[in-house]
Amino acid sequence: MRILVTGAGGFVGRGLMERLLGGALGFDVDEVIAVDQQLDPSVSWHADPRVTAKTIDFASAELLQVLAARPCDLVFHLASVPGSLAEREPTLGKRVNLEASLTLFHHLAAHRRAAPLRVVFASTVAVYGTVTSHAHGRMDEDHPTSPELSYGAHKLMTEVLLGDLSRRGELDAVSLRLPGIVARPLSSGGHGSAFMSDIFHKVAAAQAYTCPVGAGATCWWMSLGTCVENLIHAALIPSARLPASRVVQLPVLTAQVGQVIDAVAGLVGQAAQVTHAPDDRIERLFGRCPPLHTPRARALGFSSDATLETLARRCLPGLAG
Amino acid sequence: MRILVTGAGGFVGRGLMERLLGGALGFDVDEVIAVDQQLDPSVSWHADPRVTAKTIDFASAELLQVLAARPCDLVFHLASVPGSLAEREPTLGKRVNLEASLTLFHHLAAHRRAAPLRVVFASTVAVYGTVTSHAHGRMDEDHPTSPELSYGAHKLMTEVLLGDLSRRGELDAVSLRLPGIVARPLSSGGHGSAFMSDIFHKVAAAQAYTCPVGAGATCWWMSLGTCVENLIHAALIPSARLPASRVVQLPVLTAQVGQVIDAVAGLVGQAAQVTHAPDDRIERLFGRCPPLHTPRARALGFSSDATLETLARRCLPGLAG
Repeated sequence: MRILVTGAGGFVGRGLMERLLGGALGFDVDEVIAVDQQLDPSVSWHADPRVTAKTIDFASAELLQVLAARPCDLVFHLASVPGSLAEREPTLGKRVNLEASLTLFHHLAAHRRAAPLRVVFASTVAVYGTVTSHAHGRMDEDHPTSPELSYGAHKLMTEVLLGDLSRRGELDAVSLRLPGIVARPLSSGGHGSAFMSDIFHKVAAAQAYTCPVGAGATCWWMSLGTCVENLIHAALIPSARLPASRVVQLPVLTAQVGQVIDAVAGLVGQAAQVTHAPDDRIERLFGRCPPLHTPRARALGFSSDATLETLARRCLPGLAG
Repeated sequence: MRILVTGAGGFVGRGLMERLLGGALGFDVDEVIAVDQQLDPSVSWHADPRVTAKTIDFASAELLQVLAARPCDLVFHLASVPGSLAEREPTLGKRVNLEASLTLFHHLAAHRRAAPLRVVFASTVAVYGTVTSHAHGRMDEDHPTSPELSYGAHKLMTEVLLGDLSRRGELDAVSLRLPGIVARPLSSGGHGSAFMSDIFHKVAAAQAYTCPVGAGATCWWMSLGTCVENLIHAALIPSARLPASRVVQLPVLTAQVGQVIDAVAGLVGQAAQVTHAPDDRIERLFGRCPPLHTPRARALGFSSDATLETLARRCLPGLAG
């Protein structure tokens, strides 16, 4: 099987690449075309003979030529410009998150072979806009979309296109709405949700940390390991089981920041040195997530980190390295 | 005020052009740039000195140059490839309904002047897919979208873009979800919903007609006159009153085909000579519309044809001509 991974150099992309090349997948991996604008040559898989690394734009004419000559059996489209950057640089965001995505999928649809190509698209909970607790206290899988960032609007538009191309039998897509994935490398600041990853690093290292949301702030959590398992599962799920929209809201672990801090501190056997200095804007955007009820996604075999301990355990190995 | 109308040569476009040039609008019309791939030189407004007719593609480089040199104060984007044609010719549908629309709106956003430009976009109830009666017997304004035609998917994607460009202050858009508008000229066949217009012509002329849905089939109706009033209203409504999505589901008149036939027959004083030979597919697609509950749109001042007689009366003058 030949697989295309866009955004292979990113946080989720690296995790997926390692998993794809590590075996025990339920399918053979003959070649992975790993595409990103930057690919760190020090990563473990860079020297794997099955990897064809392309440090190019994922919708460049060059990639489209590569794909036309060496058609893929499976595509993971992870590349995107993050929400806050796309908001500051709208031309870049539009080009990558909207236009290049549409170009890539229209190209893959137009150059399809006998069976429609399975495409796994990393969409986002940003399609909902600000999620605050509702009267009934929880949020459902068919919660209306109402993006408040161009990032979310462009992802939503791409979801709609993939649903239509799948209906026409030109592609066989699955759009997964991902929450923020943890624990990303310690940030240099700027991302509003960076605290969700930073607390893992700081607490595990027993370092002092000032958290921009209160201990009671409630967020949606998913470890990289669980995210990658869901991506692989999406590659294998029979299309007949998928909804017509081809959109799946992934299950998430809903938990308070203080609970996550306690779980990490308990696992490493260190006292957490966290103080809370809540920033209203960040708390409103990321810290008031209601419970997310996803029975359809769970019935399809998608999963969240089962417990706080699972989440902490899956996030910590990366911290040692 | 300089106004751009795309699709000016179409059924709705002609009605809008006549209304714009007829005065009593609440604003002065200095120039209308009327764009369509075909413009019939026999229409009344073609010789109006205020009209600049352009028989070109609405996203052609030529039009974008015209707009850059003569910026508009108001845009009505009506042009599209109809659903059934777009389904048969997907490349044409994609180019017009998706790519050219995105290009036009991105261009208008990029070349904006001080105040964001009001854009009225003719969207469609096709964004919902097949609407069948629900357990609670009616459909609400926030009914989930689930397009089953590329036409509906492309319109939905354009709605999402316009919501985002409006949020950013780059445009000031209103997307109106229109039902089928009646009474179009007698069709040469092919459109599944053609019967909705054809019954007006056939009953008014006291001609025999075989209707492809039963007398009890329930449809959403809107006369051209009411549609045009809603388009004009959308041009004038203050943006502060609009929802963040900028999407408005227009109120419709929900009525059975038999009721509409009776209203037309009563108005012209002729007995209707209609027999019904229901086609399951057409009845399922167009004849099982639930009552559509639109209190938000009504509070914004949008309206439906108030009664069956209003609908029939507004549709009949066009039949005489």
